[in-house]
Amino acid sequence: MSNGKTLKKFISISFQISPSYFFLLVFQSIMETGQILVNVILPKYLVDELVGGRDKANLIRFGLYIVLANVAFLFFNKTMKRFMDVRNIYMKEKLNQAMADKIMKVEFACLEDPYYLDLKERAVFACRTMSALENLIGSVARVLKNAVTIISLLVVMFTLSPVFVLILVLTISISIIAQKLFSKYQLEIYQELIPINRRYGYYVGLAFEGKYQKDIRVYNMNRMLTDRVLDYSRQIYDWFKGFTKKQGLFQGFVGVINDLQAAIAYGYVGIRVISDKFGGKIGIGSFTMYVSAAISFTTSATDLGKNIMTVIQMLGYLQPFMEFMSLPDEAKREGSVPFEGAVESLRFENVSFHYPKSENYVLKGISFEIKKGEKISIVGLNGAGKSTIVKLLCRLYKPASGTIYINGRDIYEYEFSSYMKCLAAVFQDYKLFAFSILENIKGGEASEEDSIQRQRVENLLEQVGLKEKIAELKKGVDTLFGKQYDPEGIEMSGGQSQKVAIARALYKEASLIILDEPTSALDPLAEAEIYEHFNQLVGDKTAIYISHRMSSSVFCDKILVLDGGIIADFDSHKKLMEKEEGMYYKLFKSQAANYQV
Amino acid sequence: MSNGKTLKKFISISFQISPSYFFLLVFQSIMETGQILVNVILPKYLVDELVGGRDKANLIRFGLYIVLANVAFLFFNKTMKRFMDVRNIYMKEKLNQAMADKIMKVEFACLEDPYYLDLKERAVFACRTMSALENLIGSVARVLKNAVTIISLLVVMFTLSPVFVLILVLTISISIIAQKLFSKYQLEIYQELIPINRRYGYYVGLAFEGKYQKDIRVYNMNRMLTDRVLDYSRQIYDWFKGFTKKQGLFQGFVGVINDLQAAIAYGYVGIRVISDKFGGKIGIGSFTMYVSAAISFTTSATDLGKNIMTVIQMLGYLQPFMEFMSLPDEAKREGSVPFEGAVESLRFENVSFHYPKSENYVLKGISFEIKKGEKISIVGLNGAGKSTIVKLLCRLYKPASGTIYINGRDIYEYEFSSYMKCLAAVFQDYKLFAFSILENIKGGEASEEDSIQRQRVENLLEQVGLKEKIAELKKGVDTLFGKQYDPEGIEMSGGQSQKVAIARALYKEASLIILDEPTSALDPLAEAEIYEHFNQLVGDKTAIYISHRMSSSVFCDKILVLDGGIIADFDSHKKLMEKEEGMYYKLFKSQAANYQV
Repeated sequence: MSNGKTLKKFISISFQISPSYFFLLVFQSIMETGQILVNVILPKYLVDELVGGRDKANLIRFGLYIVLANVAFLFFNKTMKRFMDVRNIYMKEKLNQAMADKIMKVEFACLEDPYYLDLKERAVFACRTMSALENLIGSVARVLKNAVTIISLLVVMFTLSPVFVLILVLTISISIIAQKLFSKYQLEIYQELIPINRRYGYYVGLAFEGKYQKDIRVYNMNRMLTDRVLDYSRQIYDWFKGFTKKQGLFQGFVGVINDLQAAIAYGYVGIRVISDKFGGKIGIGSFTMYVSAAISFTTSATDLGKNIMTVIQMLGYLQPFMEFMSLPDEAKREGSVPFEGAVESLRFENVSFHYPKSENYVLKGISFEIKKGEKISIVGLNGAGKSTIVKLLCRLYKPASGTIYINGRDIYEYEFSSYMKCLAAVFQDYKLFAFSILENIKGGEASEEDSIQRQRVENLLEQVGLKEKIAELKKGVDTLFGKQYDPEGIEMSGGQSQKVAIARALYKEASLIILDEPTSALDPLAEAEIYEHFNQLVGDKTAIYISHRMSSSVFCDKILVLDGGIIADFDSHKKLMEKEEGMYYKLFKSQAANYQV
Repeated sequence: MSNGKTLKKFISISFQISPSYFFLLVFQSIMETGQILVNVILPKYLVDELVGGRDKANLIRFGLYIVLANVAFLFFNKTMKRFMDVRNIYMKEKLNQAMADKIMKVEFACLEDPYYLDLKERAVFACRTMSALENLIGSVARVLKNAVTIISLLVVMFTLSPVFVLILVLTISISIIAQKLFSKYQLEIYQELIPINRRYGYYVGLAFEGKYQKDIRVYNMNRMLTDRVLDYSRQIYDWFKGFTKKQGLFQGFVGVINDLQAAIAYGYVGIRVISDKFGGKIGIGSFTMYVSAAISFTTSATDLGKNIMTVIQMLGYLQPFMEFMSLPDEAKREGSVPFEGAVESLRFENVSFHYPKSENYVLKGISFEIKKGEKISIVGLNGAGKSTIVKLLCRLYKPASGTIYINGRDIYEYEFSSYMKCLAAVFQDYKLFAFSILENIKGGEASEEDSIQRQRVENLLEQVGLKEKIAELKKGVDTLFGKQYDPEGIEMSGGQSQKVAIARALYKEASLIILDEPTSALDPLAEAEIYEHFNQLVGDKTAIYISHRMSSSVFCDKILVLDGGIIADFDSHKKLMEKEEGMYYKLFKSQAANYQV
């Protein structure tokens, strides 16, 4: 996206949020210019009166004008600023919300693709760290103000002499060109710094991070890390030394040019006071006025250059944001048929999957069918494609080819949110949120009455074996999960959290339930308890389990054996154990061997 | 720690890093004041000449003085600034390094205690986000500069009239008092904002985080999260509205006071031009000089107030840093006896442990002994205290009471780094680093020749079953672990990473090896393979295993059965299986039940 397009899109978004905003910005610019003009023009009369008539009444009058005008402008500008500050906060939060909303709705595959992940990171960086929008609005406003000020001052100086204006514009052009060249250099040289900074940040971050400290101590990684940090820090230091040298030269040059401009202004206006060679003589008051006009002009022109650079820079930061915002939403993708009733049948037909940018197939044309109420276990080696099946079912991944049918219809034909209601999943890396335990379990489903919800949540907590733990808590199920910001929140062990996640999946009353390594963090007794209650917990729902603990397969009606992305077998435990050459037999035996008493 | 103490400590630290730094700061302040003075005093002569003699040679001479002086100051100040900028980068990095170093060396217990964790977070925040040190140095320098400028300008204005100075000082005092009151109000009102901001940040962060998106989609948490974000964002918005209102009033007041000061300056100096009521008449040149002195004085005084506030604020930010830096180091804690040879015996004697701020004992007076070469398994329910034993052995936690003896000596009597050489541990939540695979495995031990190291690493990789995987890589063992900043790095699955972590522990050639859930992420075949090779891998080392997979106990010489922080049993698998009422029997049976073919 070009800068122009980004700016246009940004303006249109801002307009939508607050249409009056841009008019106010223009108005504010005019008023700020007004203050500058008053302080350029009014003192002329005061000085003229001081040098000339020295009439006390006049002196007091002009003095008063200056003071009152400044107070009025001050009041107005501060009020505007306050108004704008509040508006900026509002805009910034709206932007954050838009971004958060987009991330929660964008096609999930984008969140696992390095390209889009990087885009997301840069967009988040722009929103959160750089406050790119705030800075952009501020800079656009300042560009506007600078432009209005420059035009007004040009008019003032033009009354003295067009040649004077021309000379000033010329010298200013030099510093603006210098600024532009330096900006270009800066952009290029910063590219060198970015990877160094990233690595430096990574290693310092490692050292700052608590969870790495055990391994750092036991494996004596301290010095290795410090060496990296020192190495990158030396590189950064050297970069800065080089950069500030160039920057010093540039700033020195611009400084000399600015002083030259001031000298020209003082010189030319001074000559006009003492001689009429270049036009009619002017008074000391006019001298003050033109000199301060010229100086304000220089300041504004330099400022304009800087602000334009900032606008360009902020547009650059905002580009990833704009690009991310225009990615397609999950829910919008295909499907309008509302999903109704229960999962009666589930069928994979020749389904293949590979990651977008990869050519390695994770699943290669797999086909199988599950009937209502069946309990299926998926087993296989690490990397066989087990979790991919879960993600495909949850519409987190889309098949590269083939079709998944539920109740005889391609799952992508169903409307997204009604489809999501038919299934519940406990992922291997499930997450709970800093909501109350009650809220975590009932999730976004809130169709029932509060008291019924509570009753159901409490029943489920009892079933997964957390009743006593919750009863200990002062606030019961209303206790916040985690201590992120509430010291009264509850920190749970891996096993306890896993139980809450299982309760959450069961609460959903989905007719298809998927459990990926649901007991990996549980001790043998808790594990046995969960398995014992599984059939009771899951009831007549269709269920898919994934577990490295082969014993869990014994409970299941059928076992889907995956081997390198294809189906090696799909049968009952009993039948599979008869095939002594089969993968399943091998897996089961290898674990069972040491349990023979 | 008081602000004064923090400032003192900060100055002493800075002095250590670069003694010349502060002298340069003072010198810089004097020079910057010089520039202000030149621009206050020199124009007087120019204006006087313009109004009076209008001698061209004089005019050019004064004009030239002004320009040359400014160019000289510009050059000098820019050079100084450049020098200081580079120095600031240096100081900032040193601070980062000091912080990183401290975190890596501080007593581990501090990193699990919420109080110290919070302190660490605030210290890191000060270093990284606020650049507190940079800002502090900058502000201290500006305070210095302001002070020197103010004194010089007072001297200049004193030549006009002490009364004039008095009036200015009075009006300035009013705005400084207002500033101070407002700062106090601001500090208080910000306290209200902090918890809101923290929660807002937490929920926005959740929405931004990729790893939460699966659960957000499946459990329809989207709206719940958005509601939280909107709720907190409304609170922030309201807060800002209220705050900017007060701020507007304050700034308006200060603005009026500033205008009043300018009016007084212009008025008083103007009167001195036209009348001799308050002393001898002065010329227009002097008028210019005194007015610009008064205005510079006002600016500097306001600036001084602001900078002092910033210094206080930055000291506040730096306090957690200073406090964290003064925590005791792990290595310094007791012990100077170098650990030599192998672990011959290991004995826990009446060891108890509870977390510093808790009264619940995790371990209650446990005693047991392990002999050289024994393989011990620790089993028990979640929360029984298994991992705590590991952390105590690694000196990550210190017993609340009781003693751990290795080779007959309290482990805290040994010198830290030599002690850490005697053991290797694979933690449940082990971490690998963005170093090469080779570097990850050999860790900080680098006593051997490079080729021998490589050979050993490659042998170990073969033993843990990663030989083929590594052989596929272009750079082999020199491949970077992870893709954090190198697209050529390798992302490993949980199982593969765990194998690398096991290789790392074995590389260490420690005589005591501890494995906490070492195969939890491995599939049944990989698990069986690791177990099969364990005795071969571990050799004659003393070994402690923790695993929820009871089958791993079968390999062990003895099993330590923990139940609620006390030792329920400590015997061989065979003996323990004879006690049908025992915990171990129950645990083993519950898992074995489903493996009976």
